[in-house]
Amino acid sequence: MNRFGVIPRLFLFFVAILVVSFGHSQTARSDDSLPSWNDGPSKRAIVDFVKKVTTKGGSDFVPPAERIAVFDNDGTLWAEQPMYFQLAFAINRVKELAPKHPEWKDKEPFASLLKGDVKGALAGGEHAILEIVMATHAGMTTEEFEKVVKDWVATAKHPTTKRLYTEMIYQPMLEVLDYLRANGFKTFIVSGGGIEFMRPWTEKVYGIPPEQVIGSSIKTEFEIRNKNPVLVRLPELNFNDDKKGKPIAINQHIGRRPIAAFGNSDGDLQMLQWTAAGEGPRFCLYVHHTDVKREWAYDRKSHIGKLDKGLDEAHKKGWTVVDMKKEWNRIF
Amino acid sequence: MNRFGVIPRLFLFFVAILVVSFGHSQTARSDDSLPSWNDGPSKRAIVDFVKKVTTKGGSDFVPPAERIAVFDNDGTLWAEQPMYFQLAFAINRVKELAPKHPEWKDKEPFASLLKGDVKGALAGGEHAILEIVMATHAGMTTEEFEKVVKDWVATAKHPTTKRLYTEMIYQPMLEVLDYLRANGFKTFIVSGGGIEFMRPWTEKVYGIPPEQVIGSSIKTEFEIRNKNPVLVRLPELNFNDDKKGKPIAINQHIGRRPIAAFGNSDGDLQMLQWTAAGEGPRFCLYVHHTDVKREWAYDRKSHIGKLDKGLDEAHKKGWTVVDMKKEWNRIF
Repeated sequence: MNRFGVIPRLFLFFVAILVVSFGHSQTARSDDSLPSWNDGPSKRAIVDFVKKVTTKGGSDFVPPAERIAVFDNDGTLWAEQPMYFQLAFAINRVKELAPKHPEWKDKEPFASLLKGDVKGALAGGEHAILEIVMATHAGMTTEEFEKVVKDWVATAKHPTTKRLYTEMIYQPMLEVLDYLRANGFKTFIVSGGGIEFMRPWTEKVYGIPPEQVIGSSIKTEFEIRNKNPVLVRLPELNFNDDKKGKPIAINQHIGRRPIAAFGNSDGDLQMLQWTAAGEGPRFCLYVHHTDVKREWAYDRKSHIGKLDKGLDEAHKKGWTVVDMKKEWNRIF
Repeated sequence: MNRFGVIPRLFLFFVAILVVSFGHSQTARSDDSLPSWNDGPSKRAIVDFVKKVTTKGGSDFVPPAERIAVFDNDGTLWAEQPMYFQLAFAINRVKELAPKHPEWKDKEPFASLLKGDVKGALAGGEHAILEIVMATHAGMTTEEFEKVVKDWVATAKHPTTKRLYTEMIYQPMLEVLDYLRANGFKTFIVSGGGIEFMRPWTEKVYGIPPEQVIGSSIKTEFEIRNKNPVLVRLPELNFNDDKKGKPIAINQHIGRRPIAAFGNSDGDLQMLQWTAAGEGPRFCLYVHHTDVKREWAYDRKSHIGKLDKGLDEAHKKGWTVVDMKKEWNRIF
């Protein structure tokens, strides 16, 4: 016991702080972890759920390894209007690549895009979007693509807010991510967006490492170039991580059913259903875009982030629906 | 500072222990973490590598988030002779399901299998194996399949050793897994075996959670059965996680290049090449089956776990090749 006599008091002080923090991380933190949320039904529901599953000895306790939470990205973690940000990336890329593709001047959807007519280009529907994505996301190695995304994300500005896209992250959702992780959750993104479009920046922006990002993907091919192995991105869809694809991808990547799921559109409905159908405590939340002033207001009739069936099911099943206008005191 | 006067000395003692352990986990542990490894070139190479990448301020330091290590399973973490253990599972399953499939009596490869003629059944090559896998791994929900695997793993015995298959895990490799994790590595399995065949037991046996298991897979389909969402396993290959498939799957699931890779066959070669080709310190290791007495001895001519091109490349590039007979003082 004499040993302790020689430990400097300052050191003990730091040790005590360490121990106190460690102790805190074992149980749900107080509501202060969610300062951008007004006191309201959604905030209470989140905190109640987290307290329930982290209370040792409680009937709803969930071991840390099973505390899996999944988040949609577009419209749930960052904004998605007036068009998916990845589409803005792709359009910008069409302009950059145009000098190498003289044939695009007479070929839709590229011709319209190059004239600045986005609406005309997208009139071709899903086929047009697929063409744009393949032309801009394939034909290079995974490392080359990563660099292109990083450069764009670091500089491109949103057309109306003039902010960087990564400044259009929802602050209240960042707090939810942190709050869950502080309570032993592992947080995953499960997005219809491109898996390799998100990974270069999700760790920095959301604290979510690449191995916890799930998304749509194109096929890749392994080859040796100049004695150097590379993965080449092919113009062929590998997986569409939307609607029924989301539970399939969750099973494929995580192999374990989440206990909490966060979305904002009908594209997330199957993910929420899959999450809700497990045994034990479950939490499902829809972000409802109701704030036309600070952000956008849209739901049942929107082409982007349509929330119709999901809203009905949420009400029927008692899932949490966030009224962005009333419940968030800060958006970005 | 007066506060510390009231902290009981016993408590401080535990705190000190905690701090000491915490301090240790920051730097590479001593060789004692690998007691089943004889002092030899492989053990030294593993320890040197770990010390190098975990030494703060060193030129080869790698931040914890980037300490990704990937392991093949069959022949690297557990045995694979006289046939892949998953094939033994499938054959057993054919016998169990036979009463429901009277047509199998006259249909290869099932007819031979049911007569106990495994060699005859497998004479049909890859096509025969695929038929057996699809007949035994599909047509049920993911939850049903998980239960079937768990039941088999808990009871089935290896034909010659009469041990449970999960008792044929290589003890020296378990120590490597633990040693890496204690030094901040995240350990993944990247196997040609079925992803859902491994996940039900890898956490318990290897300490690797389902979300860090990558493997071959069949397609699944989301459907609502009796108001309950399920994922149904389809008799259709989704992904073959072997050879060139391994780097593709690593990129798809992890999204970050490993800094260490462990395999035992030519099927792992591209994974090792992909790992080795990254910048900064890299570690590649082949387990070479050289112990005919305690395990099996096979390499260039083997049908299972063939190690030929990989052995040449390992020697050429100075990768670590474990001589199981000389370097492991314990196998299982």
